[in-house]
Amino acid sequence: MSSGVYNKSYLMTAGPTPLPPAVSQVMAEPILYHRAPAFIEIYERALNGLKSVFQTDNDVLSFAASGSGALESAVANLVVAGEPAVVASAGKFGERWAELCQAYGADLTHLEFEWGTKIEPEAVDRALAGLDRPARAVFVTYSETSTGVLHDVETLASVARSHETILAVDAVSATGAVSLPQDEWGVDVVVAGSQKALMCPPGLAFASVSDRALETAAENPGGRYYFDWDKTATGQRKTPADSPFTPAVTIWRALDVALRMIEAEGLDNVFARHAVLARAARAGIAALGLERFGPDDDDANVVTAAYLPDSIDGAAVPKNMRDGLGITVAGGQGHLKGKIVRIAHCGYYGAFDIVTALTGLEMALIELGYDCAPGTAAGAAEKVLIEAGSPEPVA
Amino acid sequence: MSSGVYNKSYLMTAGPTPLPPAVSQVMAEPILYHRAPAFIEIYERALNGLKSVFQTDNDVLSFAASGSGALESAVANLVVAGEPAVVASAGKFGERWAELCQAYGADLTHLEFEWGTKIEPEAVDRALAGLDRPARAVFVTYSETSTGVLHDVETLASVARSHETILAVDAVSATGAVSLPQDEWGVDVVVAGSQKALMCPPGLAFASVSDRALETAAENPGGRYYFDWDKTATGQRKTPADSPFTPAVTIWRALDVALRMIEAEGLDNVFARHAVLARAARAGIAALGLERFGPDDDDANVVTAAYLPDSIDGAAVPKNMRDGLGITVAGGQGHLKGKIVRIAHCGYYGAFDIVTALTGLEMALIELGYDCAPGTAAGAAEKVLIEAGSPEPVA
Repeated sequence: MSSGVYNKSYLMTAGPTPLPPAVSQVMAEPILYHRAPAFIEIYERALNGLKSVFQTDNDVLSFAASGSGALESAVANLVVAGEPAVVASAGKFGERWAELCQAYGADLTHLEFEWGTKIEPEAVDRALAGLDRPARAVFVTYSETSTGVLHDVETLASVARSHETILAVDAVSATGAVSLPQDEWGVDVVVAGSQKALMCPPGLAFASVSDRALETAAENPGGRYYFDWDKTATGQRKTPADSPFTPAVTIWRALDVALRMIEAEGLDNVFARHAVLARAARAGIAALGLERFGPDDDDANVVTAAYLPDSIDGAAVPKNMRDGLGITVAGGQGHLKGKIVRIAHCGYYGAFDIVTALTGLEMALIELGYDCAPGTAAGAAEKVLIEAGSPEPVA
Repeated sequence: MSSGVYNKSYLMTAGPTPLPPAVSQVMAEPILYHRAPAFIEIYERALNGLKSVFQTDNDVLSFAASGSGALESAVANLVVAGEPAVVASAGKFGERWAELCQAYGADLTHLEFEWGTKIEPEAVDRALAGLDRPARAVFVTYSETSTGVLHDVETLASVARSHETILAVDAVSATGAVSLPQDEWGVDVVVAGSQKALMCPPGLAFASVSDRALETAAENPGGRYYFDWDKTATGQRKTPADSPFTPAVTIWRALDVALRMIEAEGLDNVFARHAVLARAARAGIAALGLERFGPDDDDANVVTAAYLPDSIDGAAVPKNMRDGLGITVAGGQGHLKGKIVRIAHCGYYGAFDIVTALTGLEMALIELGYDCAPGTAAGAAEKVLIEAGSPEPVA
């Protein structure tokens, strides 16, 4: 907790993200029995709402777990010990796929791209072509939270399809922030978590799984229990829908409210909001004279990452922002620690969150001796906001 | 409710003011019976805490009412129909004293000063000297919320004392924002409400009443009931403390938490925080090229009021900020409607609230055709914040 005029807390990380008041409030309602009609109504409505956000007709299989639990479900259901699997990574969360495949004994081909760059679909294509047996699956990340980079999942899906293998995508920080039209792009497995752009607390993990992927999983039914897709699919397809294990009822209530907020805003409007906020963040970073980390894409709308000036103590930036100003942003992970700062804007974020984060970043930089005029970053963001226009109020 | 990137609400008015999360949360606790020990403990602790904030040894008499109820209590207990009373006003809330005195049939001398100017203590002195019978009381405002002006209560108290009359001060928006050392300044009556710098919802009204004022009230016991000071004083002085009418138990719980937050921050630090925020707001206003409304005082730390440019539609400014950007500020009241804008910073406000309000004001001005560079206001506020320094984090 900071003090004085810095008496409020601003969470600008890519998860947990801020909760809308209506989401917080519904969790204070009396808890429900998970077999009561009142809960089943909420559960079924939220399961349906998830399909809209995942842009799919699949059942979105849901687990009481962190997002990593959904990643594990993909590996546990698709990977077979000793059989080939391919991971293409370019950051910390991509590497998690590799760790999971190793834990499950896959004959792993791990294509490692430099952090901050994009996965090259051609390299994945070549790797798949070079295998002596078909890969059980290819595992990639959509929005790589450690770098801010958005990978080309559409092309990766067609590459996987051309080799008749499954593509599993970690869309934990992307789902609900940037579009991933799963069925249109032909992505077999998309996994996500509740705590990012879905505007809920951590605790629910999702795997939207195609029939083809379910069939692939059914070929090898052992070696998993809690994360078994068939168990959860069988439960969710019952009338009324059921969960094989006690569902996290409170977070389901939160999710139900959050999904209805997304529906009311309109999914395209949600993506457009993220795009404007990201443009404003990028403009602020540029105005501060900071170099953007990662490719100069205009679709990296989940997290904005920037190199910190060499002249200052980079690790002090997120620390001073948090301890001095009450603003929590992320620094770099792994070898990027102290080198970059990451401002997230996936979920319940608005224009003045970006103004606040950029002003705080600027103040921390100035405090550490960096030379720039106060108001520079906020002004650049403000220009973007003015150009984006003021929307009509929603009744 | 606004929309798109303007999806959040920012309340920058002088009441109701934002509630700290801990205050909101305690109101969600199960409601208490007002004679239960659990409530009495809260009630007595809050009654004591009020004395610290009012800087007095008086009992702070408390009513379930809006702030205006506490004003009425002062008039109902002090004014006698047909007897002289003096009101000195320079704004809308000062005029409320006059309306109350008229409602209670006082032989009223109303000294009206121009809105935005300060009450002249010498004029009050002359008015009191010119009366043929002693005034029952003099009624003034400390922080005039309609103009932002802070009146010279210390001198007014000595003027009233020299005429052996009672001074009653409306400190509704001032209490807990700017210092009013009631006992040190010898102010007989200070009234306030829960919904401003005390960081609570509206619903509790306070009158800190000296023994001399209680004795004056006792001379004429009739013509009042709910707001009778003696009834409430008698109740509050019991062991355990009691209220003659059902206390608003939920708001008392809120107040108990809010007062403990003020105690933890330290009253002097609370005043210092308000001073820095007000300086930042004034710097932003000046950088925008707006003329400050009211005298050029550096102690008007409750509300910052500024003239809007003649070239634009002034009434559109608060409307566009609210409907377009989600930021609620106040325009002018009475004849100042459309002429001024008022940014309040009394209560649970912090540095980035000011940055947000100023950025929103700037955006609304630009939208209406006013010429200024984006980032101007935020930059000026940021400079003040940097100069004020980053406080040590509180554990």
